Amino acid sequence: MKLPFETEGVDKIGRSRFAVILIRPDSHENIGLVARAMKNTGFADLRLVGIDGLEPEAWRTAVHAEDILDNARFYPDLAAATKSLHLVFASTARVRKKFAILTFPEALETMLRFPLDTRIGLLFGKERTGLTGEELGSANFIYSIPQAVRQPSYNLASAVLLSLFGLFGRSAEGAFPREEPPLLRRDQDDCVRVILMKLEKTGFIHATNRTHITRKVQDIFGRIALTDKDRKLLMAIFNKSVERVYRPCLPGNQEKD
Amino acid sequence: MKLPFETEGVDKIGRSRFAVILIRPDSHENIGLVARAMKNTGFADLRLVGIDGLEPEAWRTAVHAEDILDNARFYPDLAAATKSLHLVFASTARVRKKFAILTFPEALETMLRFPLDTRIGLLFGKERTGLTGEELGSANFIYSIPQAVRQPSYNLASAVLLSLFGLFGRSAEGAFPREEPPLLRRDQDDCVRVILMKLEKTGFIHATNRTHITRKVQDIFGRIALTDKDRKLLMAIFNKSVERVYRPCLPGNQEKD
Repeated sequence: MKLPFETEGVDKIGRSRFAVILIRPDSHENIGLVARAMKNTGFADLRLVGIDGLEPEAWRTAVHAEDILDNARFYPDLAAATKSLHLVFASTARVRKKFAILTFPEALETMLRFPLDTRIGLLFGKERTGLTGEELGSANFIYSIPQAVRQPSYNLASAVLLSLFGLFGRSAEGAFPREEPPLLRRDQDDCVRVILMKLEKTGFIHATNRTHITRKVQDIFGRIALTDKDRKLLMAIFNKSVERVYRPCLPGNQEKD
Repeated sequence: MKLPFETEGVDKIGRSRFAVILIRPDSHENIGLVARAMKNTGFADLRLVGIDGLEPEAWRTAVHAEDILDNARFYPDLAAATKSLHLVFASTARVRKKFAILTFPEALETMLRFPLDTRIGLLFGKERTGLTGEELGSANFIYSIPQAVRQPSYNLASAVLLSLFGLFGRSAEGAFPREEPPLLRRDQDDCVRVILMKLEKTGFIHATNRTHITRKVQDIFGRIALTDKDRKLLMAIFNKSVERVYRPCLPGNQEKD
């Protein structure tokens, strides 16, 4: 017998294109609870960064969700885990002065604004410390789940559950994509790297502001969710700016790329 | 520094009037996670039925939510835990043929439809078996949280978290009560007991259908969330029906109540 409102099978948002990425989780109990939350809400792609295998605690808490753990993939670093995705959304419980932060509903709407073949990673940091500035810098969007008190933040598995349930709740309604497809995350990163290189060449970035400006640039261009058209435009703009800076002092400069 | 959308302090639904009731939870790890989920979402009243105290596992998982555990109250049975509340909403993961089940959004809307001084209990059963038929029978409303697969059901603490987050998400918007205040749960139970007694007297309930009809009656009158006016009307109706059945065969019958 089926509940009249059971949503089994209904999936208008393409849940298989979402990956849950945990960076160096301390508690394997939490990994199992994440797997169970994924199973409950119909997501399957679990990616684990910076750990090599699973301890018995993970299997204990992943009641009836062992297949998620069986199929989990392990990556040495974040770039390897996200390179085949298009967009990365990072969850943070703390204020991050250097980054723009979406509200929770904004984040869910943004995820569903992109075409249905956009592969999206949901990124969650370590239990106690969350994501580092560098990790946040390699996400396209950062969001925060509302809470009533500053402390404690949501348990890791709870943050995953609320994020997935938020998406799952919209999966019966369907998504109405409005945006161009973004580049693969790897290609977006390459594009940002080229921009940073150009900014170094123009002297805009130098030894004393490098960290600060790099983060700002990553934040701004990360949020754009760069498309192929965006890349062409940006490359044109930055090539121009490098040319202009270089031309007066280095008339013979070959740098055109 | 505060996140611009932090909802700390905002509470238009009166979160203090909600109690989370766990019946005989097996895992104290889950009790701690429930406390943390309550803290995260701004709820404080935890009631534990059928257990006498807390094990260290509860304190381990209730990170920064120890005050919820400190203030938790222990009850020998469900009636004791709910008697001072007005309404009880029970969460179930299984189909219950004998009971009407609200969808999750319906349940949240229903909770907020009653006046802001309505004290509401959210009832959650044991991890593996959920609530018994009798326990469901003593709730006003039963609801189910949508899930993508039949198995596994949500972890106990996850079901609590999703319920509270659903309410919390509406707490910034505010509630717009439309209904009369219901009787205290104890008085509703008394009213249903009187109705059952009357139905026994008329011969409508007898040995072979007692369990079945009792549940149906509890389900129907539970869902009404009986007000004082309802009680007066029902008592009048059932007194009348008893009189009518009794009069022809027992003209001298003194039963008027």
